[in-house]
Amino acid sequence: MEFSSRLLENAVNEISQLPGIGKRTALRLVLHLLRQPESQTMHLASALQDLRTEIKHCKSCHNISDVEICDICVNLNRQQDIICVVEDIRDVMAIESTSQYKGLYHVLGGKISPLDGIGPHNLTIGSLVEKVQAGKVKEIIFALSSTMEGDTTNFYIYKQIEKYEVKTSTIARGISVGDELEYADEVTLGRSILNRVPFENSLKSS
Amino acid sequence: MEFSSRLLENAVNEISQLPGIGKRTALRLVLHLLRQPESQTMHLASALQDLRTEIKHCKSCHNISDVEICDICVNLNRQQDIICVVEDIRDVMAIESTSQYKGLYHVLGGKISPLDGIGPHNLTIGSLVEKVQAGKVKEIIFALSSTMEGDTTNFYIYKQIEKYEVKTSTIARGISVGDELEYADEVTLGRSILNRVPFENSLKSS
Ligand SMILES: [Zn+2]
Ligand SMILES: [Zn+2]
Repeated sequence: MEFSSRLLENAVNEISQLPGIGKRTALRLVLHLLRQPESQTMHLASALQDLRTEIKHCKSCHNISDVEICDICVNLNRQQDIICVVEDIRDVMAIESTSQYKGLYHVLGGKISPLDGIGPHNLTIGSLVEKVQAGKVKEIIFALSSTMEGDTTNFYIYKQIEKYEVKTSTIARGISVGDELEYADEVTLGRSILNRVPFENSLKSS
Repeated sequence: MEFSSRLLENAVNEISQLPGIGKRTALRLVLHLLRQPESQTMHLASALQDLRTEIKHCKSCHNISDVEICDICVNLNRQQDIICVVEDIRDVMAIESTSQYKGLYHVLGGKISPLDGIGPHNLTIGSLVEKVQAGKVKEIIFALSSTMEGDTTNFYIYKQIEKYEVKTSTIARGISVGDELEYADEVTLGRSILNRVPFENSLKSS
């Protein structure tokens, strides 16, 4: 693509670095912004800047939060000794929308994936193990998507905590194998949490 | 969608105002940016701000440009009395990439589309008619996509200039009816400019 304007080219290049957005789409988005009031572009730009510079993660569960300890972790109406282990905030939002789960979460920030250069130490596994070591946890529910990376991550964590007195379970596989958790419908997802099975059982069946 | 962070929600809302981007996709893009170095988000935000505040349009052809009169208009190797009328910069880029056309352009900024609230006065038609009135133009080539809005716009302009001594043509319909110009392959598009037909002929055949 040859551009008649360096400003235009620059904006198209930056947008097309986002996943799934090619140069043609980026150009279409930029031309759209140019036809809208200037305020729309300014709000978009400052929302991105504010997000990136001010974003916090809950010190306890590592979910994205605007405060030190998130609303879920400080809510004493929730069961503090059950922890549901998820990949990222989308999974927390998906499970919360079912209104079926009243424990806490632990957000790993990804799955173990050697091909993408993501090892256990890039995730928040250490802080999860510390909670278990401190004897504060009665049950860990693994709610990662059932892909090879998800299974690997579950198993890695399981090995770290099996020597402690903690029950482990995985959400019931009402969700089809290989599907992303966030795309599951609310009923299926809610049921799969209620029908969770001991993690050892899930090892035998696979 | 219920968000645990106002900063996150704000960024997702702003991004999902872009055409074709829903809330799920916006959230995926935002989480991607949070995993990348901070500089990527900052470069994206300032590219958008700079574009929107500093962007100029060529005073002659109305194409996006960083200078008062664009590189195409000031190029004396190009034929100054042939003007190709297009909708936006994407069409200029598409035609330039064929290397078949050596005249100038006139960028309308859209098509007449009453349903979208776009009338003749929202486009740069007035300044095109002035060029014709001034006697500087030998030929006008209509290169809008062959949709109802494109045909309406062509005809509207044609009626404004038919009383002057100016040849009018449309690009040959090697491009399938209803297709957007920017998606045509370079060979087809280049040929359709070389084989352009008098605009009156295109009226008879439709
Ligand atoms: Zn928390
Ligand atoms: Zn120009």
